[in-house]
Amino acid sequence: MERIDRYSPLPLYHQLYEILRGSIHSGEWLPGDMIPPESELTERYEVSRTTVRQVLDMLVNEGLIYRQRGRGSFVAHPTVEQALVRIVSFTDDMRQRGLTPGTEVLFSGLVPAPVDIARRLEIEPGEELAHLKRLRLAEGEPMSVEESFLVHRHCPGVLDGDYASNPLREALVSYGIRWLHARQTIRALVAPGDLARVLSIEPRAALLFIERVSYSQQHVPVEFLRIYYRGDRYMLHNELSD
Amino acid sequence: MERIDRYSPLPLYHQLYEILRGSIHSGEWLPGDMIPPESELTERYEVSRTTVRQVLDMLVNEGLIYRQRGRGSFVAHPTVEQALVRIVSFTDDMRQRGLTPGTEVLFSGLVPAPVDIARRLEIEPGEELAHLKRLRLAEGEPMSVEESFLVHRHCPGVLDGDYASNPLREALVSYGIRWLHARQTIRALVAPGDLARVLSIEPRAALLFIERVSYSQQHVPVEFLRIYYRGDRYMLHNELSD
Repeated sequence: MERIDRYSPLPLYHQLYEILRGSIHSGEWLPGDMIPPESELTERYEVSRTTVRQVLDMLVNEGLIYRQRGRGSFVAHPTVEQALVRIVSFTDDMRQRGLTPGTEVLFSGLVPAPVDIARRLEIEPGEELAHLKRLRLAEGEPMSVEESFLVHRHCPGVLDGDYASNPLREALVSYGIRWLHARQTIRALVAPGDLARVLSIEPRAALLFIERVSYSQQHVPVEFLRIYYRGDRYMLHNELSD
Repeated sequence: MERIDRYSPLPLYHQLYEILRGSIHSGEWLPGDMIPPESELTERYEVSRTTVRQVLDMLVNEGLIYRQRGRGSFVAHPTVEQALVRIVSFTDDMRQRGLTPGTEVLFSGLVPAPVDIARRLEIEPGEELAHLKRLRLAEGEPMSVEESFLVHRHCPGVLDGDYASNPLREALVSYGIRWLHARQTIRALVAPGDLARVLSIEPRAALLFIERVSYSQQHVPVEFLRIYYRGDRYMLHNELSD
């Protein structure tokens, strides 16, 4: 165990931050492990409670640990970062990160287009949509819920595929549908109870919520997608220019 | 008042959705107005409670109304959408939307760089940072809290400016600093109590949380910025390509 050096020019909080960060990065503490309670850290490193709290706050802000009310602090699972530039499939994305992807189909069926979705897909309300709702997992842990609504006349029978095992995207290619581009909005939501349950998070935890319309190479909107990402597991990133 | 037409081929929920949406878009109901309670809508339009709930859910999903536990449903203020491509100043952004921007300085002072921020700015921990924390308003209503951390040696004395009235960006130009590009991450957070208070939202409401490092034309990281956007007022949007 590393110790605080009282003769170092580095402030105590800085040293403690480096020690705790090291314990996480070295794998000494694993995702899901409980961090020793504040009182124990105070005693072990002979620093004030204020210093301990300051350092824990920094680790929470960096997404390295998370707090659970009344239980303590835990090492976070590494957050998944996704670039906001290209349309990537969940399966490819997870594989590129070396994580085993998993999918559970929560719903699959034909539904009449609700008026709000019809507007975004530029079709008449009531037109037949293929609706597929899937839970996405990484290493067996829930990451997101995806709700696809496809204009069924562009891909009749698409729901016959097995989308627990196969990417929807590949099935669409067999209908001649490839995505040209997509438009999306990104919001923060508080998880409603049913979604929280499916995603194994606390009710009222934060979600990143994406709504996306994807256009075929004929510039026709074919899919409306809602994705609910766990706020504690997902992070988007992008570059801005002046 | 528009009425439901029982002989129309359009489903009842569709008709009710169009009526309520119309009341909002026509300005008959204004932002902040309470929507009549479910029981009243049920009676007025002679539809089932299930239909009323379904339509209110659709309007909530579209961000047109919001619910307050135990109080009812209210017309939402239009959500501000921001493109994720260019670095835009809050002031310019709001003016382009025809909204009067406002700023309150919550903190202004020199601070030693905490180790986590130092790492992102590629400087030594403890180096002097100019720290400016501001509340941003549109039409007098809180929208976001922005925390800037600037490497002070690149812009000595920068905090002497009046950043309630003047854009920080313009002051930086006088130090020869113009942003070349920036890198940012986007997460969803549950609002801690102090931020919720400053932003006039309920504790544990959802926030969009951006962390951004901005680089000068010499490719030097000069600013680390944390922005906490109200989840109910802010939406980001972007385009994806295949």
